[in-house]
Amino acid sequence: MTVFEATCTAPVNIAVIKYWGKRDSKLILPTNDSLSVTLDQDHLRTLTTARADAQFGSSAEGSLHDRLWLNGVEDEIKEGSRLSACIAELRRIRAELESKDSSLPKLSEWSLRLCSENNFPTAAGLASSASGFAALAVTVAELYGLSSVLSASELSMIARRGSGSACRSVFGGFVAWQSGEKDDGSDSLAVPVAPREHWPDLHVLICVVNDAKKGTSSTSGMQRTVATSPLLQERIRIVPKRMEEMRAAIDKRDFTAFCDLTTADSNNFHACCLDTAPPIFYMNDTSRAIVALIEEANRAAREAGKEPLAAYTYDAGPNAVLYLKEENVPTVLALVRHYLPNADFEDTFNVLGGGAGAYHRGEQPEVALPEMPSTFNADVIPVQETGAVRRLIHTRVGDGPRILERGHGPQSLLQEDGTPLRLLRHKR
Amino acid sequence: MTVFEATCTAPVNIAVIKYWGKRDSKLILPTNDSLSVTLDQDHLRTLTTARADAQFGSSAEGSLHDRLWLNGVEDEIKEGSRLSACIAELRRIRAELESKDSSLPKLSEWSLRLCSENNFPTAAGLASSASGFAALAVTVAELYGLSSVLSASELSMIARRGSGSACRSVFGGFVAWQSGEKDDGSDSLAVPVAPREHWPDLHVLICVVNDAKKGTSSTSGMQRTVATSPLLQERIRIVPKRMEEMRAAIDKRDFTAFCDLTTADSNNFHACCLDTAPPIFYMNDTSRAIVALIEEANRAAREAGKEPLAAYTYDAGPNAVLYLKEENVPTVLALVRHYLPNADFEDTFNVLGGGAGAYHRGEQPEVALPEMPSTFNADVIPVQETGAVRRLIHTRVGDGPRILERGHGPQSLLQEDGTPLRLLRHKR
Repeated sequence: MTVFEATCTAPVNIAVIKYWGKRDSKLILPTNDSLSVTLDQDHLRTLTTARADAQFGSSAEGSLHDRLWLNGVEDEIKEGSRLSACIAELRRIRAELESKDSSLPKLSEWSLRLCSENNFPTAAGLASSASGFAALAVTVAELYGLSSVLSASELSMIARRGSGSACRSVFGGFVAWQSGEKDDGSDSLAVPVAPREHWPDLHVLICVVNDAKKGTSSTSGMQRTVATSPLLQERIRIVPKRMEEMRAAIDKRDFTAFCDLTTADSNNFHACCLDTAPPIFYMNDTSRAIVALIEEANRAAREAGKEPLAAYTYDAGPNAVLYLKEENVPTVLALVRHYLPNADFEDTFNVLGGGAGAYHRGEQPEVALPEMPSTFNADVIPVQETGAVRRLIHTRVGDGPRILERGHGPQSLLQEDGTPLRLLRHKR
Repeated sequence: MTVFEATCTAPVNIAVIKYWGKRDSKLILPTNDSLSVTLDQDHLRTLTTARADAQFGSSAEGSLHDRLWLNGVEDEIKEGSRLSACIAELRRIRAELESKDSSLPKLSEWSLRLCSENNFPTAAGLASSASGFAALAVTVAELYGLSSVLSASELSMIARRGSGSACRSVFGGFVAWQSGEKDDGSDSLAVPVAPREHWPDLHVLICVVNDAKKGTSSTSGMQRTVATSPLLQERIRIVPKRMEEMRAAIDKRDFTAFCDLTTADSNNFHACCLDTAPPIFYMNDTSRAIVALIEEANRAAREAGKEPLAAYTYDAGPNAVLYLKEENVPTVLALVRHYLPNADFEDTFNVLGGGAGAYHRGEQPEVALPEMPSTFNADVIPVQETGAVRRLIHTRVGDGPRILERGHGPQSLLQEDGTPLRLLRHKR
């Protein structure tokens, strides 16, 4: 008997022009355009398997019951949730196909089993909702055979219903989310700006920062900003020009402009968080030490007639994401490891020598300060405790979602009998 | 022989609608109005003695040489400095008086000796430029007998030339600095909003926060914000309405409105700092822990149908200044001492019992959590290291500058021979 199943991966994306604020929270329509860089799935990705089977229950028998497992733990699919809105939309489109072609199996009537795993621990502090909802949308669309009727941008609208920024993970490379103007959200979708191949030497260094504090969720945080921050209204007016400038910077691979826009927009977004009542703080003292380090390194480089070394950006948490040219990775990596020592680091690109994949963990020998322009002044960098940066992840610009299996196969996360391959014994 | 000397004190002021940004940096004309509360000189003040004597040198003999000692260390009065601009303006007005009345001694032609001391250590992290320049202007004006020709608001313009916010320390109680519109600054001055007696139970708790980092000076910081922050332009548009609302809140002694406006404006100002390129950070993790504590205490109080407990505001540094009603001091003090233990605290108002002035220093017994509304949730307050708040200062709304001596007297900071009473052997 045929197993109706698909397994796909979707990437993480990190915005350089940020999304913060919805004009419609049900449809997830943003107050402004945003633009992101898709990261390489070789290093960070969500893997999802979706299977439809009448034996799991079906609407014909009144026993439709979709189930989802996230990282080995079952997650209830609540009625009216964003997750159920995504699934319902995909099922609706499949049902339309079935109604036009009676030869198609009635997958839309069968219960779904979804199993999803991230290859980065939640503890890494990276938001997994973007890659997660993108993987869900892509995988169910593949299972349902929707590629003939849905463009990637149309699929991005479905991912958007799960988590706004997920729409941008439907493409690789450089991606814009057009906020759109329509009330029904039919023009609020992701479009490719440039493929990964356009700027292959753009690398990414993620500094995962230790943080005791549980932050404000981005969903509730951004609604509070919309309701209370007078400065957000100015931000909304500023972003269109920034989007234009960012597109031009990417088009020309102008790293200086890319860097200036990225850091300005990150700071502008966090300024709006601070202008919220009560204020929202995502960056902590370690985040700010990284800002001070990168700003000083960039200042010294510019003074020496060179390009800035790295652009920093912060999402709704304390972790720094640095965009930098491949040639500057050794210098920036050494700077971070020198001033913020003992971060765990898997050397995926063999920057340190000794073989790709070598793992540096826990107490590490002191990393020498790299050669810097003479005006570089370390005094401006506040000293942080050892281990304040917990982990470093080195990656680069990546491609869009990948289809790993059509039907059941060795990469599936469901076993042949439809149960998850890996289950955590206890809920975390 | 007559000694021409005066000794005065001037208070510290802490803005509740902040000043950040100049439209003219030479004349110190601000981009927006601001409003402050003058603190009590019984606890925080600058004391200044000014003497004019031909024996120190005179312009008639071509040997004019003014000298200044700050906290026991001589400070060079540089040509073209703000300090010399203040002195020159006072001297010019004195010279006018002398030209109209030949019976007046020619003080304007004689060198000045100025000696100034703060009763709070620089290490307390409180800006001393406001009280310092106000004391200078008031004392020299008193020495020169300018009270008949200069109103307090006119005197505030001279203090403003030394340090913008100094103009507000020329009055007690609640004080507005009107930015003015004229290019020559002749309408940029302080005016009283309400005297201290208007709201006598408004108290102040200053949390002096440990901070390793040397911050950006406010002079250079605000110019960078003006040059680079798009959000500052919106702030400038917002402030006039806030000024109106703040005047109304003070007029009605409406603590809830006063609290909401004060915290919103502090956060708005720091948001503009963060929106600056490179970003400016004055608040640190301890500052933010205090914000979290006060916001949660206020939230719980409001939910229980009560007024908020305290308003927080932060200047260009990590210290929190809390405004609160006298009746809530014991609760807020206990909250701060419970969550941020071991701050040095001199009990000026005998809140803790055991006598006014009792000093609590270093390791202290654990302070019990005060009775709080049932929904108060301590989980949202990030734990800080012991001693993160270094010192607590309890004060209240205060009066304007005080004249302590006309002529030489026991409170003078200069000895009879014109040398400073106290000199530090070594420059700090």
